[in-house]
Amino acid sequence: MKVNGVSYRTIWLEEGNRPCVKIIDQRQLPHRFEVEAIEDFEGLLTAIADMHLRGAGLIGVAAAFGIYLAAYELSHLANFQEAMEGCALKLINTRPTAVNLKWAVERQLSSLVGIHDPDERVSVARQTAMSIADDDAGCCRQIGLEGVGIIEDIARSKSGGVVNILTHCNAGWLAFTDYGSALAPVYQAWQRGVKLHVWVDETRPRNQGASLTAWELLNEGIPHTVIADNTGGHLMQHGMVDLVLTGADRISSNGDAANKIGTYLKALAARDNGVPFYAAAPSSTFDWTLTNGLSQIPIEQRHPDEVRYVSGWLDGKIQSVLVCPDQSPAANYAFDVTPARLISGIITERGICSPLPEGIRRLFPEKFDQ
Amino acid sequence: MKVNGVSYRTIWLEEGNRPCVKIIDQRQLPHRFEVEAIEDFEGLLTAIADMHLRGAGLIGVAAAFGIYLAAYELSHLANFQEAMEGCALKLINTRPTAVNLKWAVERQLSSLVGIHDPDERVSVARQTAMSIADDDAGCCRQIGLEGVGIIEDIARSKSGGVVNILTHCNAGWLAFTDYGSALAPVYQAWQRGVKLHVWVDETRPRNQGASLTAWELLNEGIPHTVIADNTGGHLMQHGMVDLVLTGADRISSNGDAANKIGTYLKALAARDNGVPFYAAAPSSTFDWTLTNGLSQIPIEQRHPDEVRYVSGWLDGKIQSVLVCPDQSPAANYAFDVTPARLISGIITERGICSPLPEGIRRLFPEKFDQ
Repeated sequence: MKVNGVSYRTIWLEEGNRPCVKIIDQRQLPHRFEVEAIEDFEGLLTAIADMHLRGAGLIGVAAAFGIYLAAYELSHLANFQEAMEGCALKLINTRPTAVNLKWAVERQLSSLVGIHDPDERVSVARQTAMSIADDDAGCCRQIGLEGVGIIEDIARSKSGGVVNILTHCNAGWLAFTDYGSALAPVYQAWQRGVKLHVWVDETRPRNQGASLTAWELLNEGIPHTVIADNTGGHLMQHGMVDLVLTGADRISSNGDAANKIGTYLKALAARDNGVPFYAAAPSSTFDWTLTNGLSQIPIEQRHPDEVRYVSGWLDGKIQSVLVCPDQSPAANYAFDVTPARLISGIITERGICSPLPEGIRRLFPEKFDQ
Repeated sequence: MKVNGVSYRTIWLEEGNRPCVKIIDQRQLPHRFEVEAIEDFEGLLTAIADMHLRGAGLIGVAAAFGIYLAAYELSHLANFQEAMEGCALKLINTRPTAVNLKWAVERQLSSLVGIHDPDERVSVARQTAMSIADDDAGCCRQIGLEGVGIIEDIARSKSGGVVNILTHCNAGWLAFTDYGSALAPVYQAWQRGVKLHVWVDETRPRNQGASLTAWELLNEGIPHTVIADNTGGHLMQHGMVDLVLTGADRISSNGDAANKIGTYLKALAARDNGVPFYAAAPSSTFDWTLTNGLSQIPIEQRHPDEVRYVSGWLDGKIQSVLVCPDQSPAANYAFDVTPARLISGIITERGICSPLPEGIRRLFPEKFDQ
């Protein structure tokens, strides 16, 4: 996607004598566009844990680059594979809910099995990271093509009137290598001339909607309105939302979808008001080992200060204000799980499926016929 | 209630040569406890519109004091009643959703009809304002006594275990003259030794939960945890909420209840997880002229900057940070309406009623038998 007319991905390799991973530092957005250079494994670990970057797909791709950096640093070790497994575990533990991270790291580890030449270890890890990034972008592009029909159908049913889409958190290109998941069909529809307006949930506690989704839409020129997370129900009660479109961080094999905390509340409101609710995600988001998302998907708890303080732009820099009594504790559950029964469909790069077992089985027969 | 061991109401008259209404400036809480003196009608109008004070009951009481200030300023006018009606309209237009404001102002106007002596006008307006304040506090105290049984029953069913209550916005004593509506049963239960823990929704965009409810609970020593508004659904899915208790700003005769934006989403989650959801409000909150709250209760829209910026404590003062791109627009619907079908019961000073027509009719027969 473009930033001020220049094409960017969210993460890329800078060619040079030694590895250098470049990322857009999302903590500075929307106020400042800043690229960060990461040259070692520990730096990348911090970037994921402290959310210099975030998003279901992007943390997976970043972790793959993390293994590349680790391979570069440790390629001469005799117990290389063991060392890589240690690094993999550190990466997986930074963000326990999104499964793409685990998936990407495991793909890297498998690619390195049995390779003994240090240079080859590095070059394979580099190549695998690049492939994972390309696959991520490719899947998202395809999700846009698969999902755009949902928006076009609504536009037709409104005789070309504006389609109002509500989205929660950021599942745009900043959450992946490029294109995005929930926003990919939105961008595709916009390019095809569909009239759109997006309600952007601010998405407390970290405000990824207000800061990242609004910034993406602004860059693409798509009409949008930022709202408090409390607002979606009222809008749906009054016919102001035609479609709810979110991403997902992990989908269990029974179709329950973990996504940013608060998604479940929007799904309830969508159901109560007959508004379709779709989750968009690449198939790497499915965790085939889980049969019940609600009870089995681990929910990350982050530092309470992300709730107690709000960050934003003041006097030319990002500052944080305390919004509750200094002595009041806070809890910070980062995700919730929307039960399959509330989901109209899951948009993947393979097509759209019902979240019910038979729908998922039809799209992913190889996962069931074993 | 007490602040640092001293008993306060949220609004009171300071005796002296000329009228002086004192209020707790809620914009400074929880960071600074500041009392503001208001000596003229315009000052009080600003205090309500700019939310120096807020809350369904308190804005009604404040408006009653506003009419007293206006009566003092205009008592010698020949067209006194007409002038008072003009002031009343200005007050009513500041906050269109809460009906207590309209109710209190109309009670003031009726009390002044046919009085021609300027001194008597002032003294009647003063007396009526004081009565409205006392009635408000009395009703809230009674709501506590009527509602406490709900909490005690849950405590018994948990064999004396901690009762987890989720509340949205601030319906504590700061929202009334004293005691509060939703929090009155909580305070009553706490005084009776029931073990409690309160989940406090931060309540964006103005964070009345994080700033006011948390501060109240801290002052009373009641265990509580501040959460982002997105969190309640997840907590209810995992059995961490025994009861949802909120206030109401206007209740239509069919039992639909307007309350702070986002309440509807919590009511949906409560229903989806079998958690009881109660609204607590004095009977002056009922608007008997409305038969359908969802379509008829006017929803206040406030300035978009309340969404675009977040206020809090930084460097020893209250400051605001911008949380979205400067060019992104925002919408700020201040209330939503929870349909009667999602409400387990309404707690009033007369007792608890089902929100269904027969339940309301039983508690308020005089409103129906006309």
